[in-house]
Amino acid sequence: MDSAVLAPPVPAAQLAHRFAEQLAPGSIITDPTRLSTYQCDGLAHYRVTPAVVVLPQTAAQVQHVVRVCHELGVPFVARGSGTGLSGGALPHADGVLVVTSQMRRILEVDVANELAVVEPGVINLDVTKAAAVQGWYFAPDPSSQQVCSVGGNVAENSGGAHCLKYGFTTNHVLGVEVVTPDGELVTFGGRTRDTPGYDLLGAFVGSEGTLGITTKVVVRLLRKPETVQTLLAGFRSTDAAGAAVSAIIGSGVVPAAIELMDALAIEAAEAATHCGYPDGAGAVLVVELDGPVAEVEHTFAAVQQHCRDNGSFEIRVAADDAQRALIWKGRKSAFAAVGRISPDYIVQDGVIPRTKLAEVLSAMGELADAAGVRVANVFHAGDGNLHPLVLFDDGVEGEAQRAEEVSGGILDLCLSHGGSITGEHGVGSDKAKHMPKMFTEDDLDTMQRVRCAFDPKGLSNPGKVFPTPRLCGEVPGRRTEAHPLVQAGLADAF
Amino acid sequence: MDSAVLAPPVPAAQLAHRFAEQLAPGSIITDPTRLSTYQCDGLAHYRVTPAVVVLPQTAAQVQHVVRVCHELGVPFVARGSGTGLSGGALPHADGVLVVTSQMRRILEVDVANELAVVEPGVINLDVTKAAAVQGWYFAPDPSSQQVCSVGGNVAENSGGAHCLKYGFTTNHVLGVEVVTPDGELVTFGGRTRDTPGYDLLGAFVGSEGTLGITTKVVVRLLRKPETVQTLLAGFRSTDAAGAAVSAIIGSGVVPAAIELMDALAIEAAEAATHCGYPDGAGAVLVVELDGPVAEVEHTFAAVQQHCRDNGSFEIRVAADDAQRALIWKGRKSAFAAVGRISPDYIVQDGVIPRTKLAEVLSAMGELADAAGVRVANVFHAGDGNLHPLVLFDDGVEGEAQRAEEVSGGILDLCLSHGGSITGEHGVGSDKAKHMPKMFTEDDLDTMQRVRCAFDPKGLSNPGKVFPTPRLCGEVPGRRTEAHPLVQAGLADAF
Repeated sequence: MDSAVLAPPVPAAQLAHRFAEQLAPGSIITDPTRLSTYQCDGLAHYRVTPAVVVLPQTAAQVQHVVRVCHELGVPFVARGSGTGLSGGALPHADGVLVVTSQMRRILEVDVANELAVVEPGVINLDVTKAAAVQGWYFAPDPSSQQVCSVGGNVAENSGGAHCLKYGFTTNHVLGVEVVTPDGELVTFGGRTRDTPGYDLLGAFVGSEGTLGITTKVVVRLLRKPETVQTLLAGFRSTDAAGAAVSAIIGSGVVPAAIELMDALAIEAAEAATHCGYPDGAGAVLVVELDGPVAEVEHTFAAVQQHCRDNGSFEIRVAADDAQRALIWKGRKSAFAAVGRISPDYIVQDGVIPRTKLAEVLSAMGELADAAGVRVANVFHAGDGNLHPLVLFDDGVEGEAQRAEEVSGGILDLCLSHGGSITGEHGVGSDKAKHMPKMFTEDDLDTMQRVRCAFDPKGLSNPGKVFPTPRLCGEVPGRRTEAHPLVQAGLADAF
Repeated sequence: MDSAVLAPPVPAAQLAHRFAEQLAPGSIITDPTRLSTYQCDGLAHYRVTPAVVVLPQTAAQVQHVVRVCHELGVPFVARGSGTGLSGGALPHADGVLVVTSQMRRILEVDVANELAVVEPGVINLDVTKAAAVQGWYFAPDPSSQQVCSVGGNVAENSGGAHCLKYGFTTNHVLGVEVVTPDGELVTFGGRTRDTPGYDLLGAFVGSEGTLGITTKVVVRLLRKPETVQTLLAGFRSTDAAGAAVSAIIGSGVVPAAIELMDALAIEAAEAATHCGYPDGAGAVLVVELDGPVAEVEHTFAAVQQHCRDNGSFEIRVAADDAQRALIWKGRKSAFAAVGRISPDYIVQDGVIPRTKLAEVLSAMGELADAAGVRVANVFHAGDGNLHPLVLFDDGVEGEAQRAEEVSGGILDLCLSHGGSITGEHGVGSDKAKHMPKMFTEDDLDTMQRVRCAFDPKGLSNPGKVFPTPRLCGEVPGRRTEAHPLVQAGLADAF
């Protein structure tokens, strides 16, 4: 669909030859078997084999690759560890996949100024490991933190269970060094907060590889909290658990994490990990508090009271790290565990205002019942970030199609309740088609004008995020009719 | 300097005629006497009279004004309350000043979802007043919070004494409705966090009026802390006070505010407010903690111990709100109070990494001594945001010039220590000339390409932020020589 703006394919051998001017032969892959390793990211049902894969070791090498692509009109896609769930690192068939896994040096850990400087391929958890000896850590904690890269976190603005209190990746990045799509090496942000000029750091974080390739990242480090307390509370229904969430947040407590799992998710987790969640629970909450001992002791008692007041029939407090790990094991394994109770499933990711929780869960149940599919719910309840798991059996005629429809319907529910089509997984290849439900044409046009400012040739991760790529230089015509949800006043929702 | 991209001046009467198609006659000002009221903002030494002033009451009226300007090629500048300190709302002589003071409705206070929706002319403190009855508040607290507007806070990404713990305006805005420079009405962000697509909300906040005019803002509300504790600690020297700051932050405590005043600033504050700061203090710290009672009691004791360990000879704890107000009175009046000890002064605003405090203060002292001018220091010590007040007497030949040189030299010191040319006052008209010391040409060029994406005709607040406006559509040539500070490796500082 973007062939109109791209030159005809350049032969892989020609690209490899040009890249070899500055990259070692071992860093350039054109062998079909080896290329196939890079066909997809964590969203495995989209697969494309790239023309060439490169594994640069320095920013100068990234710059060389991008300059060659820019000169020849070849699309390129950046990839970290490839754990993304929206197909953001899906390769382009005529393009170059720039894999940052060889750029894995931690350049500096400076706890006095509360920061570290790392290359983009550095594994998320390795930042924390490097800072832990001095008692500091890197806050963003996607479930994949043992394998995902900081560069990928920057591209997707990754969240995690603890982003209720600590925010997303964008709240933990002070600066980035970037190769822009025309091959310039620029810096956004720096070592201090609130640098002057446009906050292009903010726009770059979460731009899903469409504005350039990160070659260096300055991340914030946080001091490890003095104490952590974790509890597991059993409820008879998701409504009761949701009411407890509202009571806790409404009282002014900001837990480090507050996670809700419904009966089907509990069943899956039990089947996989035998985590021993309370018998007969229609929902469980995992609540974690961290901070100074004096504060946490005080608020932890209040949280338990809110749970009891809202019908929790069993509360387990982790007495030590081993018990805390057991509580989290069920929660963190929930996605994979669903494989135990269903041959196939779709992981959805949407956001609703927290106050709409009961209403949306109920509507989601009706939607699933009507289609005859099951939906398991696991979510970051504190900030309304839902992760419905839509279960189906690809072996049964029509089930995949019905699951896909329910999954899309869930996003419509999120939108009609004032929410968003993605909380932390990104738009990527998967959700570009949903963007016009959330944004007006003027909104999308404004975003694409920014994209054209960075990438007039449309070479940097083309086909992602935007449903219909805008031809740069094009004069925008009069607006066509908006999507029904937009007409219904969503665009004016505030 | 931007005349090359602008059409010849359009007569004020013609503009007024067009604006009258949608604005009431009382909302259009062309009378020279009334126009002169709008000559400057808080940075009073730049003054320009605009051709026309408009006071729209709705987003549709703002859109009409901007569309007329876009059609006729007339520059326009947005202005809230006009309290900015960098000349960001300085009018354009051939242009239209769009004053938002008639757009002052608080449209919604929704504490359950922790937000309020306001028009851009709403006064900062009025948001807190509207939410206070339910126990909530709006965190950004610039010194001007009793008069400055939320729209102005958005444009300048305003900070305040409490932004160490709570962050800048950008951390408290969830969404904005904006009229873009070509007259489209778009929304960035929304009611939920982390909306998909580019984070243009982040880029817009702090863009100083160069990307369009805000017509509606969704702000975050925070629950009022359970308790607040404030102390004033006297030290013999700024070095000792700075060491106490490092000890407090290094221990993992995040005070709501931690402010440092040196001997000259104390002298000025005493002269103006008789605030009774400790006798013989070479520096004072104001430290405020807030949060749950249990936490604050615990950490407040630790903070006092850090002060004593670093040589504080007197610590006063505010016993009640009246005593807290007295402690803050000296601090908040310090800028104006300097008028008691010097006929004229420049308020500078720069940032350094906190660990460089002693080094930079010492170098700043040498700089001032060499030039024979005095510098008083008041600053947000926790995040290294300096506010040096350079004192001079405009009646003495050459003093203003020397003060200006020292003031610029202070920014060079900030930069050479890895800091920034502005912490919270913005670039505006005043600091555009310093931007090339902080950014490479590629960095500035990338920002201006984004500006061109929004504003190809360069009509929205022209002449601000960027030292040399880029002609949109221009193909960037090869880079010229960088500024010495850039060559010295600052661009590679991380």
